[in-house]
Amino acid sequence: MNYQRFFEEAIDQLHAERRYRVFADLERIVGKFPRALWRSNGRTQEITVWCSNDYLGMGQHPDVVAAFQDAAGRMGSGAGGTRNISGTSNPLVQLEAELADLHGKEAGLVFTSGFISNEAGISTIARLLPNCLILSDELNHASMIEGVRRSGAEKKIFRHNDVAHLESMLQAAGRERAKLIVFESVYSMDGDISPIKEIADLADKYNAMTYIDEVHAVGMYGPRGGGITEREGLADRIDIIEGTLAKAYGTLGGYITGTSAIIDAVRSYAPGFIFTTALPPALAAAAATSIRHLKNSQAERDAQQQQATRTKEILADAGLPVMASQTHIVPVLVGDPELCKMASDRLLGVHGLYIQPINYPTVPRGTERLRITPTPFHSDALIAELRDALVETWDALGIPYGTAGQPAVAESERVIPLLVPKSGG
Amino acid sequence: MNYQRFFEEAIDQLHAERRYRVFADLERIVGKFPRALWRSNGRTQEITVWCSNDYLGMGQHPDVVAAFQDAAGRMGSGAGGTRNISGTSNPLVQLEAELADLHGKEAGLVFTSGFISNEAGISTIARLLPNCLILSDELNHASMIEGVRRSGAEKKIFRHNDVAHLESMLQAAGRERAKLIVFESVYSMDGDISPIKEIADLADKYNAMTYIDEVHAVGMYGPRGGGITEREGLADRIDIIEGTLAKAYGTLGGYITGTSAIIDAVRSYAPGFIFTTALPPALAAAAATSIRHLKNSQAERDAQQQQATRTKEILADAGLPVMASQTHIVPVLVGDPELCKMASDRLLGVHGLYIQPINYPTVPRGTERLRITPTPFHSDALIAELRDALVETWDALGIPYGTAGQPAVAESERVIPLLVPKSGG
Repeated sequence: MNYQRFFEEAIDQLHAERRYRVFADLERIVGKFPRALWRSNGRTQEITVWCSNDYLGMGQHPDVVAAFQDAAGRMGSGAGGTRNISGTSNPLVQLEAELADLHGKEAGLVFTSGFISNEAGISTIARLLPNCLILSDELNHASMIEGVRRSGAEKKIFRHNDVAHLESMLQAAGRERAKLIVFESVYSMDGDISPIKEIADLADKYNAMTYIDEVHAVGMYGPRGGGITEREGLADRIDIIEGTLAKAYGTLGGYITGTSAIIDAVRSYAPGFIFTTALPPALAAAAATSIRHLKNSQAERDAQQQQATRTKEILADAGLPVMASQTHIVPVLVGDPELCKMASDRLLGVHGLYIQPINYPTVPRGTERLRITPTPFHSDALIAELRDALVETWDALGIPYGTAGQPAVAESERVIPLLVPKSGG
Repeated sequence: MNYQRFFEEAIDQLHAERRYRVFADLERIVGKFPRALWRSNGRTQEITVWCSNDYLGMGQHPDVVAAFQDAAGRMGSGAGGTRNISGTSNPLVQLEAELADLHGKEAGLVFTSGFISNEAGISTIARLLPNCLILSDELNHASMIEGVRRSGAEKKIFRHNDVAHLESMLQAAGRERAKLIVFESVYSMDGDISPIKEIADLADKYNAMTYIDEVHAVGMYGPRGGGITEREGLADRIDIIEGTLAKAYGTLGGYITGTSAIIDAVRSYAPGFIFTTALPPALAAAAATSIRHLKNSQAERDAQQQQATRTKEILADAGLPVMASQTHIVPVLVGDPELCKMASDRLLGVHGLYIQPINYPTVPRGTERLRITPTPFHSDALIAELRDALVETWDALGIPYGTAGQPAVAESERVIPLLVPKSGG
């Protein structure tokens, strides 16, 4: 075994498959969102970011930045320990209360990432429950898949948003067996929304627990930013609502909310929670400030929806293949991995617009796309500039124009290579 | 299945086993380290923290806090995306270069926690290597155990620091089979150090890869803070050096360093890295500042060693059962879980000293202890105060005095309950 050669070949293989990723070296600019400095080959250039998950630009909000700086000045840059061993800071305690209130739940628990919150939350709940059956939507995020896998529980995958398929599985399992339905509210690559009410009805009918991932919805939907479950008045019908502090709230970390008993069980039994340093107090304070702001302010949500709708319309009017989306996410179909990467490179290099290409295995082959996320700070002028740049790029590379509906997802395309699950990343 | 009752009973069980954990609500005070505000039952009291993993107090260092605040003011409170999708900030790129330099390696890769760096690092390397055999020290941290487990690879556990036992396993596996030895430099509960040179010699002899966890050593050992491997001149003999930014460096996050090929492989194939939001630029800037400071300043390391040695001597002189430790960690044997919890409660409630009890399963039954971590900021006066408080507590609770050697670890005691692995937490 020649280890060095082995790893070199593993990287060569990624190059050969055109799956090798180069990370853009960015420096975002507070006060000029969505502008950023891009460093490449010794050159620095100011560009516009069109693919950020800082969906509302809260990461540069003056109150959020001030809370961050103030807490760091008073309490320092780190937590200094795990939650159990000296790492539980008062801002973190307050943040968890804020999150419980956001979703109308008894308790909340913060993790250092949404990935860990899903992995630890799902795996711990399903592992504790005797002979638990997990019912998982086929398009769930990689972190949920990891949670399901790690639980060691039996799992069944239902077709994306297909409640009839889900019901057949619930029925087969029977009322008595422990069952956990795991799904998302907003699926971030297509921007579609799950039938939450129907799933909650089925959970009642067959006595199943429900776990929803609202990471692409919290802060952005519902009158206080409680997500799609709040908008639809369904928060009390879902057992565990999971979310993130790293997207619309502009900071870092993930969380779950639910009854005190469930949250306490995860808190007490999840290795990924117990054995890791707590979130720094400055991040907790900034996140709580961001959540409180978005509980009281509708302006960011309105502006985001307006600019997202406007972006869809203007790109569609130019004949660009905007894919169907019920949310703030604007996917534009390219349909070829090479072209998708070339389009992204051209947009950045020629036009100074940064939109990361989304290729297989993150999305099915043939549905390669540019995933655009307009924010309240993407002005009408920036949208016009985006349209012109996309049209120039489509023409230069010969990418097909035309309408693009919701893509048909061939099930065979959803078989994911061992080490690179789909979604995000 | 009554879910609510089930989870309530799971919590009741923890109470019954005296394993239910109550987190202390703390607010650390910049400029007054190791002092903190402790909130309990509506009361706020200033106390001294004696169990922080902010081992050198760098979390309150003026340069570190300034770098944190400055970067947040310029770049905001969050990263805004995964590493691949708009989340790679320039401070993060610089931090990874700083870490590679720290350990004399070609490349570094930052994760949002040390837990994830171990889990993703070990599992990805072992999963990529065909038919890999993992050889793992029996006292490895929970995060390493998770990495081993998740890799799906065959594993063999060697007795703690037992190179003869390790060699027998390497010999049986043969030179040709892929092998990964995973171990720590400093084991944080006992404070002992592993035989790194002997393990590296065996790795050469039998053609194995080596992965070392230096989380309780980086910043604190070696002339530039490169850990025990740097102090012993062995960094170039270990393939992957893993460390944390959340202990001696006073911020958040974990990392691995190694050859470009290995680091690039983990970067490209690890779901726990790919599908998670990047560390915020402010944390990256603060961590890099902390690392640079400790590369150039020996003062913190010297003061920490001096105060740790002094603490051991003064407590031992008072007849307290200080356990053998080769490092800055000062374990004091209690030997009973109830007494250990009572001692901790009394120290906090009566004396205003916070030292978390360390009970089974974190350590073997019969070796329950108080784990004390003196820092450069624990003055002689604070050490005297600690001694007096411990003596009062030992007398009040009738805890045995006497010398305590390195505890004998009964192998049967190292069988860990399913959901609560040992170490840390």
